[in-house]
Amino acid sequence: MINEKSYELGNKRSSIREIFEYAKTRSAEIGAENVFDFSIGNPSVPAPKQMNETIVRLIEETPSVLLHGYTSAQGGKDVRDTIAGNYARRFGVPLLGDGLYMTCGAAASLTICLHALCNAGDEVIVLAPYFAEYRVFVEGSGAKLVVVASDEQTLLPDFSALEKAITPQTKGIIVNSPNNPSGVVYDGETLRRLARLLTAKSTAYGTRIFLISDEPYRELIYDKETVVESPMRYYPDTLVCYSYSKALSLPGERIGYIAVNPYMVGGNAVYFAICGAGRKLGFVCAPALFQRVAAACDGLTADLGVYKRNRDLLYNALTAQGFTCVYPRGAFYLFVKAPEGDSKAFCERAKARELLFVPGDDFGYAGWVRIAYCVETEKLERALPSFALLAKEYGL
Amino acid sequence: MINEKSYELGNKRSSIREIFEYAKTRSAEIGAENVFDFSIGNPSVPAPKQMNETIVRLIEETPSVLLHGYTSAQGGKDVRDTIAGNYARRFGVPLLGDGLYMTCGAAASLTICLHALCNAGDEVIVLAPYFAEYRVFVEGSGAKLVVVASDEQTLLPDFSALEKAITPQTKGIIVNSPNNPSGVVYDGETLRRLARLLTAKSTAYGTRIFLISDEPYRELIYDKETVVESPMRYYPDTLVCYSYSKALSLPGERIGYIAVNPYMVGGNAVYFAICGAGRKLGFVCAPALFQRVAAACDGLTADLGVYKRNRDLLYNALTAQGFTCVYPRGAFYLFVKAPEGDSKAFCERAKARELLFVPGDDFGYAGWVRIAYCVETEKLERALPSFALLAKEYGL
Repeated sequence: MINEKSYELGNKRSSIREIFEYAKTRSAEIGAENVFDFSIGNPSVPAPKQMNETIVRLIEETPSVLLHGYTSAQGGKDVRDTIAGNYARRFGVPLLGDGLYMTCGAAASLTICLHALCNAGDEVIVLAPYFAEYRVFVEGSGAKLVVVASDEQTLLPDFSALEKAITPQTKGIIVNSPNNPSGVVYDGETLRRLARLLTAKSTAYGTRIFLISDEPYRELIYDKETVVESPMRYYPDTLVCYSYSKALSLPGERIGYIAVNPYMVGGNAVYFAICGAGRKLGFVCAPALFQRVAAACDGLTADLGVYKRNRDLLYNALTAQGFTCVYPRGAFYLFVKAPEGDSKAFCERAKARELLFVPGDDFGYAGWVRIAYCVETEKLERALPSFALLAKEYGL
Repeated sequence: MINEKSYELGNKRSSIREIFEYAKTRSAEIGAENVFDFSIGNPSVPAPKQMNETIVRLIEETPSVLLHGYTSAQGGKDVRDTIAGNYARRFGVPLLGDGLYMTCGAAASLTICLHALCNAGDEVIVLAPYFAEYRVFVEGSGAKLVVVASDEQTLLPDFSALEKAITPQTKGIIVNSPNNPSGVVYDGETLRRLARLLTAKSTAYGTRIFLISDEPYRELIYDKETVVESPMRYYPDTLVCYSYSKALSLPGERIGYIAVNPYMVGGNAVYFAICGAGRKLGFVCAPALFQRVAAACDGLTADLGVYKRNRDLLYNALTAQGFTCVYPRGAFYLFVKAPEGDSKAFCERAKARELLFVPGDDFGYAGWVRIAYCVETEKLERALPSFALLAKEYGL
C-alpha cells in the first residue's frame, strides 16, 4: 500500500553497497590492511587546508543569522556571481550568476534538471558505461531510460548507435566526462560531433534535445595535454551539473550547482523550471555555509597528486601484467576488461585474492570491471603482487 | 516542452516572496527602520553559541575525509543513535537509531515521506490553516491534496469535518503543531482523539492512514503549562518530520530527520521506502558536518526569550486594541482576524501604515492574516503605535 517503487529502491542493496558491506566483514576477519577494497568512489585525500580555514573565518566574521539563515532558493547572489564569473573566465562562456542554481550536490543537480525538463513518456539517453543511479533519477522523473553502448575500443560515444537511438521522444542525453566508471574524457572534437548530431536530430524532429553534462570529476585530470572544455560552447541547449564533492573532497556536505547555458534560447524558462523542480522535490536551498565555502574555494582542489600517482602505478602495472585497460585521463577509476569476458566471475576470482572491484554490469557494460583507485598509494602498492598472481592465474 | 508544472512552480512567486520583495524596495525608499516586515518566518536570534563552537571543535578533532565524507544514506549511525536516544528519553517512546533517517531539513522530510507512501490517486489531508508548500509537496508526490478547515474558534481540528473528509483513498494526514501560521499547539487530548478517529476509519475501510507530524516548531513553546507530546504514543502509523532550522536558528543549513514510530507494524518496510524515496529524489545523505552538529546540539535551542517577549507584547497589545487573535502557544506567528473579513484588504490597509503581514488565503484560511514576530523586540515596540492607529481606523 506504500509506494512500491520507493520500497524496492530502498530495500534493494546496490552491488557496490554489497561489496562495501563484505569489505567490512572481511576486514574484521583478516584485518583491514589485508583487504584491498577498490569498490568505492570516496575521495581519499583531505579537503584543501583553505576549506576548513574558510569555515572558521566565516564563523568568526559573519553574523549567525546571516551565515546560517535561508538563502534565496537558487543560492546567495554573491555566491552565484562569484562562481559564474570563475566559470566564464575559465571556459570562455558568458555565464552570469542569474544562470546558476546552487544545489545539494550532483545527485540533486541531476534530479532537479530531469524534473524540470521531463514529462511522462519522454526518453533520456545515457551512454554505457554509465553511473548506475542515472536510471533511478531518470525513472524517478517519469521519463524512460534509453541506454546506448559506447565504442568498445575507446569508450567514447558510438555516434552511429546514438543516432539510431534518438527519437522524437528524446528529451535529453546525459554525458559524464571525465567518466565514472571508465575515466575517459571527451575531447573538444567529441563534444562538437555530439553537438552536430543533437542539432541535426532536434531540427529534423522539430524538438528540443537537452544535453545534461554531469561533471563532478571535471577537476580530476592527470595529463597536461588533456583539455576539459565546456559543452556550452558547442551546444546551446546545455545544462551543466556540477558538484564540489570530488574536487574539494567533501562528498558528505552536498554542495554543487546547475548552470544554464547563457546561449540557450528561452534559458529563462528552463531556469524557472529548475527553480520549480527544486521546490517540488523539497530542496529549499543548498546548505548555506557550504555555499559560501564553495564560492571561496571554487577553483581549488584537494591534493590530486595522490590520484595521479595511483593512476600511473595501477595502469602501468596492470597493462604490463597483460590486462586490457582503458587509459583513464580523469576521475579516479580504471576500467579493466574481464579476461574471461564475464565480469562477475572476474570479480569473484579477484575477491579470492582479497581484491574487491565492481562488475561493469552495474554500469550497463558487462565484461568489464571498475577499479576505484582513490586509496592510499601504499595500499595500492601492496595490492600489485595480488594483481600479478591474478594475471598469472588467467595465463596472461 | 519542458515540464510545465515545474515551470509554473518556479515562475509563480509566492505572495510571501512578493511581500519580501516589496519590503526591500520600500526599505530603500524610506529606510529599513521604518518598514515593519512581519512576513517572513526566518529566525531572528543567533544560533546557540555552542553550535559554532561545535563546528570548530569538529574541524579540529575529526580527520577531513571522515568529517566531510559520505555518510550512509540514512545518516551516520552515531548521529542517529544519539538523536533517537534523546527522543526516547524525552517523549517516552522506544525510538532507536535504526528508525531515524537524517534529512536536508523539514521540506525534505516531507517530500521523502510523501514519495515513500503515496501512489497516484491517493489523498493526503491537511488541516487549514496550513503551510502553503504542503500543496506543492503533496501534488509533487502524485497524490491529491484534501483541505479540511479547522475549528474557527480554537483552530484545533474540526473532527466532524475531518471524519467526513477521510475516504478509502486517504493515505495520510499532515498535522503541524505548533502550527504555522496560527501558533496553535495540539494537546494530548487532541492527539488521542485524532488517533481514535484515524484508527476507526482505517479499520472500517481496511486501509492504512499515516499520520505525518511536521514538527519544526516543536521547541518553540512559551508557557510552562503547554506540554508537547509525541503522537507516536497514541497512533502507531506515525511518521515524525523534524527540522533543526527554528530551534537552532540554522534554516539555511538544511538539517532534520524523519522518525518512524517504533510501534508501527511493518515499520521496516516504511523505513526502506523512505530510503528509496530519498534516493529517487536525489538526497544522497544529509549534510555530513551538520549531522554531527545536530547530534551534538540536539536539545539545545537558540535564545527563545526574545520570541516569548514578542509573543506577549504583540498578543497583549493587539487584543487590547480590539483585534481578534488566536493565543499562540508556540512557533513565532500570531494569527489575527481581518476586521472587515477580507484578509487581503486588511493587509493593504496595514501596508499603508508600513506594516507587512501575509494574508491567510495563502494558508487556505481566508479572513485572517499571519504576523511573524521573529523580529527584534525594539522594532516590534516601535510598530505598536501603528497597530493602534490601524485599530482606530477600523473603529475597534
